[in-house]
Amino acid sequence: SHGRPEPSPAAKDAAPDHRTLGLQQELFITSIYSPGSPIFLPNGTRIFNRLVDFLRKQYIHYGFQEVITPTIYKKALWATSGHLENYAEDMYTVTSTSPSRAEVSEAGEEAEYGLKPMNCPGHCLIFASQNRSYRDLPIRYADFSPLHRNEVSGALSGLTRVRRFHQDDGHIFCRPSQIEDEIRKTLDFIRLTYKVFGLGPYRLALSTRPAQFMGAAEDWDQAEDALRRALDEGGKEWSINAGDGAFYGPKIDVILTDSDGKEHQTGTIQLDFQLPKRFNLEYAAPAPALERKGETTTDAALLAQYGPVQPVLIHRAVLGSAERLMALLIEHYNGKWPLWLHPRQAIVLTLNDTEPVVQWANHARDVLRGVSPGSPESVPAAPTGLAVDLDDSARGLGVKAREAARKGYGLVVVVGKNDVEAGQVTVNATALAPSDASAEELKKLKRMTMKPEELR
Amino acid sequence: SHGRPEPSPAAKDAAPDHRTLGLQQELFITSIYSPGSPIFLPNGTRIFNRLVDFLRKQYIHYGFQEVITPTIYKKALWATSGHLENYAEDMYTVTSTSPSRAEVSEAGEEAEYGLKPMNCPGHCLIFASQNRSYRDLPIRYADFSPLHRNEVSGALSGLTRVRRFHQDDGHIFCRPSQIEDEIRKTLDFIRLTYKVFGLGPYRLALSTRPAQFMGAAEDWDQAEDALRRALDEGGKEWSINAGDGAFYGPKIDVILTDSDGKEHQTGTIQLDFQLPKRFNLEYAAPAPALERKGETTTDAALLAQYGPVQPVLIHRAVLGSAERLMALLIEHYNGKWPLWLHPRQAIVLTLNDTEPVVQWANHARDVLRGVSPGSPESVPAAPTGLAVDLDDSARGLGVKAREAARKGYGLVVVVGKNDVEAGQVTVNATALAPSDASAEELKKLKRMTMKPEELR
Ligand SMILES: [Zn+2]
Ligand SMILES: [Zn+2]
Repeated sequence: SHGRPEPSPAAKDAAPDHRTLGLQQELFITSIYSPGSPIFLPNGTRIFNRLVDFLRKQYIHYGFQEVITPTIYKKALWATSGHLENYAEDMYTVTSTSPSRAEVSEAGEEAEYGLKPMNCPGHCLIFASQNRSYRDLPIRYADFSPLHRNEVSGALSGLTRVRRFHQDDGHIFCRPSQIEDEIRKTLDFIRLTYKVFGLGPYRLALSTRPAQFMGAAEDWDQAEDALRRALDEGGKEWSINAGDGAFYGPKIDVILTDSDGKEHQTGTIQLDFQLPKRFNLEYAAPAPALERKGETTTDAALLAQYGPVQPVLIHRAVLGSAERLMALLIEHYNGKWPLWLHPRQAIVLTLNDTEPVVQWANHARDVLRGVSPGSPESVPAAPTGLAVDLDDSARGLGVKAREAARKGYGLVVVVGKNDVEAGQVTVNATALAPSDASAEELKKLKRMTMKPEELR
Repeated sequence: SHGRPEPSPAAKDAAPDHRTLGLQQELFITSIYSPGSPIFLPNGTRIFNRLVDFLRKQYIHYGFQEVITPTIYKKALWATSGHLENYAEDMYTVTSTSPSRAEVSEAGEEAEYGLKPMNCPGHCLIFASQNRSYRDLPIRYADFSPLHRNEVSGALSGLTRVRRFHQDDGHIFCRPSQIEDEIRKTLDFIRLTYKVFGLGPYRLALSTRPAQFMGAAEDWDQAEDALRRALDEGGKEWSINAGDGAFYGPKIDVILTDSDGKEHQTGTIQLDFQLPKRFNLEYAAPAPALERKGETTTDAALLAQYGPVQPVLIHRAVLGSAERLMALLIEHYNGKWPLWLHPRQAIVLTLNDTEPVVQWANHARDVLRGVSPGSPESVPAAPTGLAVDLDDSARGLGVKAREAARKGYGLVVVVGKNDVEAGQVTVNATALAPSDASAEELKKLKRMTMKPEELR
């Protein structure tokens, strides 16, 4: 129904599974010692780091500032944030292993810590650590910290049902008058990101005020109106889940349809009227009574009066759980990664193990990596970030090429005597061919000669 | 005694303190809710991320592969690794906050977790997850995970005595015959890194076999000889702490002298004969009896016999604790960061708030950041990674310039009507001047005109 044919039953059986592909491509493993905490192998780590890199570049554009925040906080913080009351089921408690190192609270008991399931309280502490003015807002913090939530062990699976995960977490502290603009920008960020990854289609769902809610109905109405306007402006399909918002604010969910037609909730934008109150957050603004309602004035007398106003907090994640998004990407690409995300971008193979061939192969690898050969003293001038392996073993080219194909390398670069003499390499790029490539195009991609520099 | 004059008593009083500078430059804060877990503000996070970036670039050259590993492991793992026996004092225990979610062990008790103080056991799990051949070695894993160690609360201070920290942690699994080469490369990596940061001088200290030790004395002798040869080759001053090695292997410490003449242990290279045994690690090699001794043969009959051999494990950190190294760097630069590490690289100030001036100032910032202005649809083509702020408020230039100077911006870029017309900006770079710059040089740096592109 989204412009794709329904998969046939046979195709459904063969639907890619990120757990199988994760093993095959050596992306991640799991361990009985850390159920629900996947271990990312070098290949999976490369993909993970490229997702983070991609987001960091966007953060420059969208005005997010990254912060690094603690993993454990005293329970007093989780009491302030309301997590102890509402979220204890899913949390882990941290205590001293040795009683002699236990910290004692004022009540004479051990001061326990909570392992963080979310970053929001930490970001509220940062906001509260300085006096803030209306001129400083919006303030947008981003955080890639690992988070822990205690899922029951029976439910754990691969990268989709985990206990330890990373969100591309962000918190926007803004003036009431800035809500609409911030939502609009976030929707834009989401559209850009899913387009770059080729994921989708997705739809947006607005969850509105529930029967039990916190704050003034008037504030809710205003905020929901701002969300609606931003959604309309975004031009994307959206729907309403009436009364389905959290008690502390309305939200927009990103619901992604995968190639099997299955829906997954990924990104989210959640307004929060409560946490800023719990943490007593405020900023100074002129005409505070109007400011609170998101209104402005030109009345000089009103503008001369400054007062404290509570900022609006927007929790937002574009990818959602990086782990779950990786699972979706693994299945989406089904092992055929685009070059920029490819965990095994290139391998250089030698036709024989004579010295000139091995030397030229090493040189080709250095050029591809952007490493200055033979100068360990200097910082590599311009590392390309490409993951390039080298197989200069004495084994036959056939064996090495089959192994490279089995491992799914994007580019297979072969170096023989003729290549050394011509100052070139021979490249097989068929693994990167689009699925609708013609036989002629494939033939061309199978054997290209070029200078190593031209490959970057 | 290291070529620097002894600081006078007055200078000593004024010695930079990273805690004061950290507040002044808005690098990090601490919280009563997370004693010993510093919170990195955006400025501190920028420096932290640049340290990680720098290391990642070197990892390409030095053959390290980054992995992402769990934060909590079941206590059974810490029993295997020996941490429960030898390190429990410093560890934290993790349990379910809600009893209903507790996992029950075979003995009917709650299966507890340990919050990791080190990455080594996780890296051993990765090594053990596949069959390894002598051809695969050395295998080098790198990890930037947060680590937790339970320091007593009275000892906590700034970034130097903490409970949560990040090591630039690495583990090398190698053949006995590869020890010397790996140590040599690691010493080279250390030399390069401290040179780039301008830190030092440092000395190297080799700690040798203690009275109580594990393994065969012969293996110790061989390993210590390899370390000595690598140290000699490195050409750096080094000394011996006889009998001061850990019971599981000899080590080399990097001992850095700061500008006050105070010594700090930063990097470390630790051989380990024990952990590979505890985790039953092995790789397949021909002539295993010789392989174990680090010897080779050309005897075809011996080479035809494959058998399992225990790899040598080398723990190594170049910076050591990233937090402590940041403290050293903060005090070393005393707020005057080199541009590449500068948390506030540039700010663009407007001379007035007319539209052409504000527009040109925004354009200049976009150019400096490498962001394509006005095209949110496209991925920024070539983000420079520069941290660039903009003050286009209606306040006077004097006020804005003084604020920028107080905040310590590296480059102060001013845009006025004349600049718009000439397609240029006016740059003050005196904050980046070397401490021995002449009055004439300073005057030149104070007022340079150029195109925005020339600033990148
Ligand atoms: Zn949040
Ligand atoms: Zn270690």
